Amino acid sequence: MATNSLINFDSLSPKFRDLYAKAKDFVENDCLPAEAIFEAQMGQGENRWKVIPPVLEELKVKARSLGLWNLFLGTSYKEGAGLTNVEYGLIAELTGRSIKLAPEAMNCSAPDTGNMEVFAKYGTEAQKERWLKPLLDGKIRSAFAMTEPAVASSDATNIELNIRREGGQYVLNGKKWWISGAGDPRCAVYLVMGKSDPSNENKHRQQSLVIVPSDTPGITVVRPMMVMGYDDAPEGHCEIIFKDVRVPVENIVLGEGRGFEVIQGRLGPGRIHHCMRTVGIAERALELMLARVTDPSRRTFGKNLAQHGTIVQDIARSRIEIDRARFLVLNAAQKIDKGDAKSALKEISMAKVDVPNMALQVIDRAIQAHGAGGLSQDFPLARLYAGVRTLRFADGPDEVHLAQLGRNELRRAEEIRARLNQIKDKSDALKAKL
Amino acid sequence: MATNSLINFDSLSPKFRDLYAKAKDFVENDCLPAEAIFEAQMGQGENRWKVIPPVLEELKVKARSLGLWNLFLGTSYKEGAGLTNVEYGLIAELTGRSIKLAPEAMNCSAPDTGNMEVFAKYGTEAQKERWLKPLLDGKIRSAFAMTEPAVASSDATNIELNIRREGGQYVLNGKKWWISGAGDPRCAVYLVMGKSDPSNENKHRQQSLVIVPSDTPGITVVRPMMVMGYDDAPEGHCEIIFKDVRVPVENIVLGEGRGFEVIQGRLGPGRIHHCMRTVGIAERALELMLARVTDPSRRTFGKNLAQHGTIVQDIARSRIEIDRARFLVLNAAQKIDKGDAKSALKEISMAKVDVPNMALQVIDRAIQAHGAGGLSQDFPLARLYAGVRTLRFADGPDEVHLAQLGRNELRRAEEIRARLNQIKDKSDALKAKL
Amino acid sequence: MATNSLINFDSLSPKFRDLYAKAKDFVENDCLPAEAIFEAQMGQGENRWKVIPPVLEELKVKARSLGLWNLFLGTSYKEGAGLTNVEYGLIAELTGRSIKLAPEAMNCSAPDTGNMEVFAKYGTEAQKERWLKPLLDGKIRSAFAMTEPAVASSDATNIELNIRREGGQYVLNGKKWWISGAGDPRCAVYLVMGKSDPSNENKHRQQSLVIVPSDTPGITVVRPMMVMGYDDAPEGHCEIIFKDVRVPVENIVLGEGRGFEVIQGRLGPGRIHHCMRTVGIAERALELMLARVTDPSRRTFGKNLAQHGTIVQDIARSRIEIDRARFLVLNAAQKIDKGDAKSALKEISMAKVDVPNMALQVIDRAIQAHGAGGLSQDFPLARLYAGVRTLRFADGPDEVHLAQLGRNELRRAEEIRARLNQIKDKSDALKAKL
Amino acid sequence: MATNSLINFDSLSPKFRDLYAKAKDFVENDCLPAEAIFEAQMGQGENRWKVIPPVLEELKVKARSLGLWNLFLGTSYKEGAGLTNVEYGLIAELTGRSIKLAPEAMNCSAPDTGNMEVFAKYGTEAQKERWLKPLLDGKIRSAFAMTEPAVASSDATNIELNIRREGGQYVLNGKKWWISGAGDPRCAVYLVMGKSDPSNENKHRQQSLVIVPSDTPGITVVRPMMVMGYDDAPEGHCEIIFKDVRVPVENIVLGEGRGFEVIQGRLGPGRIHHCMRTVGIAERALELMLARVTDPSRRTFGKNLAQHGTIVQDIARSRIEIDRARFLVLNAAQKIDKGDAKSALKEISMAKVDVPNMALQVIDRAIQAHGAGGLSQDFPLARLYAGVRTLRFADGPDEVHLAQLGRNELRRAEEIRARLNQIKDKSDALKAKL
Repeated sequence: MATNSLINFDSLSPKFRDLYAKAKDFVENDCLPAEAIFEAQMGQGENRWKVIPPVLEELKVKARSLGLWNLFLGTSYKEGAGLTNVEYGLIAELTGRSIKLAPEAMNCSAPDTGNMEVFAKYGTEAQKERWLKPLLDGKIRSAFAMTEPAVASSDATNIELNIRREGGQYVLNGKKWWISGAGDPRCAVYLVMGKSDPSNENKHRQQSLVIVPSDTPGITVVRPMMVMGYDDAPEGHCEIIFKDVRVPVENIVLGEGRGFEVIQGRLGPGRIHHCMRTVGIAERALELMLARVTDPSRRTFGKNLAQHGTIVQDIARSRIEIDRARFLVLNAAQKIDKGDAKSALKEISMAKVDVPNMALQVIDRAIQAHGAGGLSQDFPLARLYAGVRTLRFADGPDEVHLAQLGRNELRRAEEIRARLNQIKDKSDALKAKL
Repeated sequence: MATNSLINFDSLSPKFRDLYAKAKDFVENDCLPAEAIFEAQMGQGENRWKVIPPVLEELKVKARSLGLWNLFLGTSYKEGAGLTNVEYGLIAELTGRSIKLAPEAMNCSAPDTGNMEVFAKYGTEAQKERWLKPLLDGKIRSAFAMTEPAVASSDATNIELNIRREGGQYVLNGKKWWISGAGDPRCAVYLVMGKSDPSNENKHRQQSLVIVPSDTPGITVVRPMMVMGYDDAPEGHCEIIFKDVRVPVENIVLGEGRGFEVIQGRLGPGRIHHCMRTVGIAERALELMLARVTDPSRRTFGKNLAQHGTIVQDIARSRIEIDRARFLVLNAAQKIDKGDAKSALKEISMAKVDVPNMALQVIDRAIQAHGAGGLSQDFPLARLYAGVRTLRFADGPDEVHLAQLGRNELRRAEEIRARLNQIKDKSDALKAKL
Repeated sequence: MATNSLINFDSLSPKFRDLYAKAKDFVENDCLPAEAIFEAQMGQGENRWKVIPPVLEELKVKARSLGLWNLFLGTSYKEGAGLTNVEYGLIAELTGRSIKLAPEAMNCSAPDTGNMEVFAKYGTEAQKERWLKPLLDGKIRSAFAMTEPAVASSDATNIELNIRREGGQYVLNGKKWWISGAGDPRCAVYLVMGKSDPSNENKHRQQSLVIVPSDTPGITVVRPMMVMGYDDAPEGHCEIIFKDVRVPVENIVLGEGRGFEVIQGRLGPGRIHHCMRTVGIAERALELMLARVTDPSRRTFGKNLAQHGTIVQDIARSRIEIDRARFLVLNAAQKIDKGDAKSALKEISMAKVDVPNMALQVIDRAIQAHGAGGLSQDFPLARLYAGVRTLRFADGPDEVHLAQLGRNELRRAEEIRARLNQIKDKSDALKAKL
Repeated sequence: MATNSLINFDSLSPKFRDLYAKAKDFVENDCLPAEAIFEAQMGQGENRWKVIPPVLEELKVKARSLGLWNLFLGTSYKEGAGLTNVEYGLIAELTGRSIKLAPEAMNCSAPDTGNMEVFAKYGTEAQKERWLKPLLDGKIRSAFAMTEPAVASSDATNIELNIRREGGQYVLNGKKWWISGAGDPRCAVYLVMGKSDPSNENKHRQQSLVIVPSDTPGITVVRPMMVMGYDDAPEGHCEIIFKDVRVPVENIVLGEGRGFEVIQGRLGPGRIHHCMRTVGIAERALELMLARVTDPSRRTFGKNLAQHGTIVQDIARSRIEIDRARFLVLNAAQKIDKGDAKSALKEISMAKVDVPNMALQVIDRAIQAHGAGGLSQDFPLARLYAGVRTLRFADGPDEVHLAQLGRNELRRAEEIRARLNQIKDKSDALKAKL
């Protein structure tokens, strides 16, 4: 918090400040030291996808006992912890500092968070009982199956997985990939986006979202997708084939043709969470850089690295870039808190574009300061880089957000032109009197 | 204000909100239309330095009658309007929208503001009566004479103008340049920084600050310095020779050898004001760009400019860059409000580096969207670019602030290394138990 | 030449090497020292547009006597010096080092060069006799009138000046601006682009180019356009009104409706010349930076500027950026030499985009190293910046060239996709055999 | 070659042109289709380090039969193909297009190339017989062991591995990492850099280079270092412990204390090869981008990707950046050809800094155009990114080269300042006469 004084800590409730302090302590003193243990407890070979390192479950127990559990669910959910988006954002930054463990330890990790929001917001009581409850308890995990390999799914209307109704069942056929978490042996359920009405004239009414238990016959998890060489086991980002997968019609979310509606309700705050975790990642990278460049064993040509070339300036720039990006996120969070996600679309897009690009730059500088070791398994930097790099596509690529944001600004143009004309008229009138 | 929701407008006092609305109306409806009038009323040739366009005095009368007067003086000055730095910052952004007229119209223009602060904070009653009073009344103007042509004055200890005591007088000899405002016929007084004790072992006790009436014999205003072709008449940025210039010893500020102390007390908030005005400049440039690229008469190859190339993305990036820079400034302002300028040095440096670079980029994109016209007298863009470009040197060049900021971060390194070692120790202990 | 070893100096003819050495000596020892003289001999006030500093004519005499005259005219013109584009490019880089004086001193300055090419390539014998001859002799100057204030003339089909035939005359009505050189009292002739057949279905056959003596009745030079505060007197970039301006039909260039054809033939090599001069400008800026940061009188905080911050790296980057940009230009020049300008469109665009952006960056770094003085009249840097900034619009803005270049690359896509498919097929066939 | 016209293909010998055509055909039609086969033939689990995919040996046979073998050995080696650095550079660009297979298939892959140069240049006849011969035959592979984990080895004087003479033997003790190729089962020999005389006053005479057969007792290959998630099996970049490793004194290269001398002779041309291969990588990335953005199955919001946002401009910028970087490399190669590597230090540094940064940017844009798939195993882009990222450290980090280059430029400063003074003197003299 030292680096952020715009959010007036005094103005946050004492209850939240207490929670924040607990979360900070938990991340620094429990999660970060556990990262190497997690690595050591990972399975080898095929077991990478079967073994959940025990240290993770221990952390979950501790987090829950500390009240650091399901904090992501906002004030509008009765199941939630009642945090505002600003407050949860500040917690998310902390969890980003141990991105591998802290979010899941606190049951606040994607894609479960978004999926729990879907169940809480749109689920029937039966759906909540069967899926939301164990998710909130951290007993099972879940996945969200939208992206497809054969089409450009950054335009969601391109999605092709077929959902066909046959009597009391939906039959699903199609292929998905980049299904995060689907490799996890605890992943019990998928939310699957597909087309139930591909010929509907309204392109945004063709889609439905269906709940599919992961053990349903016809499902094949083909392979994990790699991210710059990382498979992110045990969760993974999987390619999955759905072949005549059948679920009861009760498994529809909200209703046929309402898939778009659901995913749009799901995206706003989730992007803020991603962004704030990423700010935490960037802070960690900067700290590693600070430690490295002052390491007395890393002297070259008679000087500490910190005394060489542009290192000091690189650090200064990173400081500026992180802080200003954090403000963009907190600004968007505050806007959501005051209104809703829809009213904060512009602010969310601004943070969504700026934060990952900022973090990649900060991490890259930290890697450079570490020499080749910075790219290796001896430091978390390269893995963090790879993870953050996906955020320039996830939930809409930079290009889509920039175009949207630019068009949004252009909507002000007509009013501005009118105002400039008024100014000119007034000016001309004054000149005429000279 | 539309673009900035992080400062919660609701949390600002109704009194301030009223003032803000008045200032906005005054800038948009009085100052902006008057800019062309000011230009038309300027003198020609040598008269550029003798004529003050009457429209300016009219604006001053109106601003004062509206209570838009001397708003820069903070809560700690009894002469002030009682605005916090955040509040005045928001006003300063507005005045930046008509940078040529609004700041002076509201008696809030540099260098008078800083000079008034010096008189108010360090002046004797007699000094206040003679200089502060007419300055607060907008009757005279003033200049601050520090920079010298022969030395690198970004390191203020290099300053060489000699101040020698002879009986009841100080005798000044030396050369200054970039003395902003010294060309103005209303400029009645200079605050002159020089060395009264050049052999003092403490390099920060060699300097004194002396009050010099501008009509004192021995002063020659040699020439205006140009800024990218602009002379900024009638204020100008002048080169001045001081030859045996004599003032009574009462004209010392604070005391001999205390010049450094004074200038350090002068700089903090002033940088914030510069920054917020510059944010206002950037907003204006973006608005001009929005107007231009949607101008129906500017179609090329069958499309509006807005539909070409990277214009939409350039606009989006400008939106992001302006907003995040504003947050840096308001953050620094808030930090000063909660403590003092000294406690906010880091935050001020961050804003000081980011804002001018941001604004130059935003203005340059706007120029590019205007074609060659954007560089000409038909739009304010090129002049704004030139003015903002000076801010990358003024009050310390980028390089000095980045170095300072980087070193500031490096001070955290030891604690971070200790923490990383603790994490490693804890991790090793846990591993040993596996 | 020290910085450029890709063009093998040994492979250039001894005759050229001799010419190059003479040009270098002339620029360094005659033109550069004359720059301050030119400034001192400029007229004051209105005389800025009437007085041609005598030193310029002296330089012209000397250059001509040295054989440094009209070198721009390529091998295909019988009037020319027989230099290839590579060779003349190398000379143009030298003249860029004293951009204010050297090009004109050697009768190689825009827009005369392009205009002479037009006369030489498309002119009748009578036109050549009347205009080309005195231009080649440096007796008169000329202008090219294309850009118009009311339309986006980067798309030349937007041009609106009307050319109407009445009997044996053309009657011109319209407004032009940014007509470089039109302020010069020696400017005797304009080449004016307008629409003689605005309803022609072929948008590229509507235009004609007409020769207009500058003293023809109906012409009003309204004002000089400023470039970031510079008026570039005495040449200037003028706004001109043509009101019922009449010239004999013999004054048409090439024929009615062939204006587009002419300007297209005019642009290629001219862009190369601009680019190489700009490389020379960048080299000069880097040299000024090197001189400044090692100046013993400019020490701050106990060090030379060169020892501070990122100065050394900035210099290194400038070195890289200048050299690689020069290669792009020489590559384009070589391509023109081997074929023609049309075959080198891609290479010309690449240089056209890269060089001005590179030079602006190099100059801006040099300015920053000079402190505020770098923006003033005491150094040529700010003026050079302003001049180069216009090159990001002139002869097509960056955006147009990038779009063209990108589309050019995209034309390769189909072939690449076919090749990738072949590779995949071959790979699949091999895999099948495993 | 289509993209590079500065090197005049006509001026290259017909023999080379024939070789180039063969190499191109071999890379495109043999190597690229074999990449997927190589992947499929890789071992699983521990076998990744034991199995050499047979397709590689098949390619080697074919390359050798085509005369595409050991082309890297320059004109100065009697074992070589007699290619100039420019010629081999052009071949290296081709092999970069299939970086995984082509260089090794043509027996031109690092670190063998550098090692062969060391043996050829400095080896005794016995050393040549034993190691150079099988290396030239592609029978064995080799590694170069310099970098150490405990010290900042970008300053080679920091190296600590101890080389102690005991009778007729050297005894080596120490730890190395990032030893590329050491994972390969065919790797038969290491060139090990260490300190034989750590107390020598001349810091560049403390080091010796020793030939160590990889099966010498006391050697432990600890682990492969990962590069952003890639282990680059089977070659790998390994951490190796040397514990009382004994070799006969005949295994010294050149002589005790001459290690520095050897590595300095080794580096120049190798950097050029890396750079040109990297240019080839960048071209491949751009081609993949061109193919992707025109892929009809990748339409979003009704348009091809190529029609969206800044894609066309990104492609144009990549085109410019690749070409200008290639010129820097060919320029350095030509400089070496005309003199030697030492005389081309500046040119090599310029290419060394520019090329990897350029390629990373081009690849990153290509990744972004591919969406998440671009980061995955389905395209070579992410792997290429990781590989190129190491080049910003290898053979000296960017920072070291920029500092060197900047200092090199600063050496011109004194002469420039003298010249500027002459110009000023001349100017003043002329002014005095006015």
